[in-house]
Amino acid sequence: MKMLINTPETVVADALRGMALAHPELAVDVEGRIVVRRDAPVAGKVGLVSGGGSGHEPLHGGFVGHGMLDAACPGEVFTSPVPDQMVRAAAAVDSGRGVLFIVKNYTGDVLNFNMAAELAEDEGIQVASVLVNDDVAVTDSLFTAGRRGTGATLFVEKIAGAAAEEGAPLERVEALARRVNESSRSFGVALGACTTPAKGSPTFDLPAGELELGVGIHGEPGRERRAMMTSGEIADFAVDAVLTDLRPTGPVLLLVNGAGATPLLELYGFTAEVHRVLAERGVTVARTLVGDYVTSLDMAGASVTLCQADEELLRLWDAPVQTPGLRWGR
Amino acid sequence: MKMLINTPETVVADALRGMALAHPELAVDVEGRIVVRRDAPVAGKVGLVSGGGSGHEPLHGGFVGHGMLDAACPGEVFTSPVPDQMVRAAAAVDSGRGVLFIVKNYTGDVLNFNMAAELAEDEGIQVASVLVNDDVAVTDSLFTAGRRGTGATLFVEKIAGAAAEEGAPLERVEALARRVNESSRSFGVALGACTTPAKGSPTFDLPAGELELGVGIHGEPGRERRAMMTSGEIADFAVDAVLTDLRPTGPVLLLVNGAGATPLLELYGFTAEVHRVLAERGVTVARTLVGDYVTSLDMAGASVTLCQADEELLRLWDAPVQTPGLRWGR
Repeated sequence: MKMLINTPETVVADALRGMALAHPELAVDVEGRIVVRRDAPVAGKVGLVSGGGSGHEPLHGGFVGHGMLDAACPGEVFTSPVPDQMVRAAAAVDSGRGVLFIVKNYTGDVLNFNMAAELAEDEGIQVASVLVNDDVAVTDSLFTAGRRGTGATLFVEKIAGAAAEEGAPLERVEALARRVNESSRSFGVALGACTTPAKGSPTFDLPAGELELGVGIHGEPGRERRAMMTSGEIADFAVDAVLTDLRPTGPVLLLVNGAGATPLLELYGFTAEVHRVLAERGVTVARTLVGDYVTSLDMAGASVTLCQADEELLRLWDAPVQTPGLRWGR
Repeated sequence: MKMLINTPETVVADALRGMALAHPELAVDVEGRIVVRRDAPVAGKVGLVSGGGSGHEPLHGGFVGHGMLDAACPGEVFTSPVPDQMVRAAAAVDSGRGVLFIVKNYTGDVLNFNMAAELAEDEGIQVASVLVNDDVAVTDSLFTAGRRGTGATLFVEKIAGAAAEEGAPLERVEALARRVNESSRSFGVALGACTTPAKGSPTFDLPAGELELGVGIHGEPGRERRAMMTSGEIADFAVDAVLTDLRPTGPVLLLVNGAGATPLLELYGFTAEVHRVLAERGVTVARTLVGDYVTSLDMAGASVTLCQADEELLRLWDAPVQTPGLRWGR
């Protein structure tokens, strides 16, 4: 498998060097593996810190900036960052009003963020943590006890980030983040596997003519394999899987997320089918975001994330954001 | 080859339906295949129209909006749109101050936009056209007489769009677009081929362990094939190819563009290497944009585009833009 890299060992450090050069508004510690808003700590603001294995870009480093994260801690590819990164990130962004850790539900991430929270508290930093576990595909998957954290992470980081930017206290930012997660569900499909630099060959084997329904963002097995389906059939399956678990009583935010190698042309066509199914099920879509946001290296496929959003969540979703990966006007 | 589609025949229409649903700020004519700013024609503003084969998303439809294009005409995948689309787009966006056609240098696009310009003039619309031909890899390639138009299209559309938004007259918008094109050069590499929905198999054959240096955005042959190189070696080759043709005497805009299937993690690492080479060659980078902007469906690879930019071009580059594919704050 050919890759645009120097060596598998330097992939993450090389990418962080590139981020630093492309985004002077970020302070990137390449050695220490943390990406921080250059204006951190922002006076009076709760600090938002997330992180996880690399390979899901723009998540998380690409979501650092005004209105979203204050810092991100990238681990090696598909590998949790370590507590030391998280503690240093917390210290870099804490203005005295506390720090919220946003943690995707993978065993390594959960253990390391828990340890980091204790260490940061020892240093006098007030820390709250929110676990993201939106993936309805499976429980107790590879790497996970309980549901996996996937696309809802973007909703949590954006909405909690907007509240923090407005000066909300830690308790409220934490409560909002928790509410967004509880209001969100995701389901993903893979048409082709991804290849990690270290392995150099596909992380799982998907026969020609089959797709994986319910795949995880590291290629973890989903619910079942089937013969290839149309975009419309996949939308039916994915939306129904989400709606079995989340029964919205109001409008939703919709993320149609590309896994990495699926063309935007296809993602937009899939979006049309997802809208069709939601309309058939009586669900109103308030906002739609389409693109590669929570990726799995070069996996082919897509995921659907819904978040039931009241007026407050919609207002915070629409609030200005300026990050490399997600931005709209102030 | 598995794709997230309904049928090859409906790929473009399905994608336009999805764009319409995801972006209510755009008026998408799915049948007529034009994407227009909903507020068009904008009083007192020169209209910018571009278009070309689909499969390069977000180019061009994703660049319709405040500060960039007024309309885009998508053709079938890798196939020129027809003059009728362009004439209707011109009519939809002309405020009376004229329309600029931005045309990538492919034989079909050039012929069709030329015919459309004549037809639009017959309807009383003043039309100017600018040809984008930035790709230094080859001349007289498949589909092209002269150099191919690739990444510089984004620079032309953004900078001319900013000038038009400020109320500049057609002559000035045209002159700026021409200057941006003449100040820009690109070079692309492929690590893997792309697959069109109609063909269903890779459009060219790239042996395992080889890469194509100088590939076009439809998979047209480049300069040569070599055994796989590191990211740093590819950056050396690509930047030197560009700098042989463009000798900047001042700072440059840099686009590190993903072909479609190459992970953002790898693109950032490649960006670091491109910056290294430019620094070694004494070239100062004023701005860097990294991501999938002028894609080739699911091709793996990347391209480098440089544009020598004086203060005026930098100011227009930094001006607000609000489109699905490119946006930053007003």
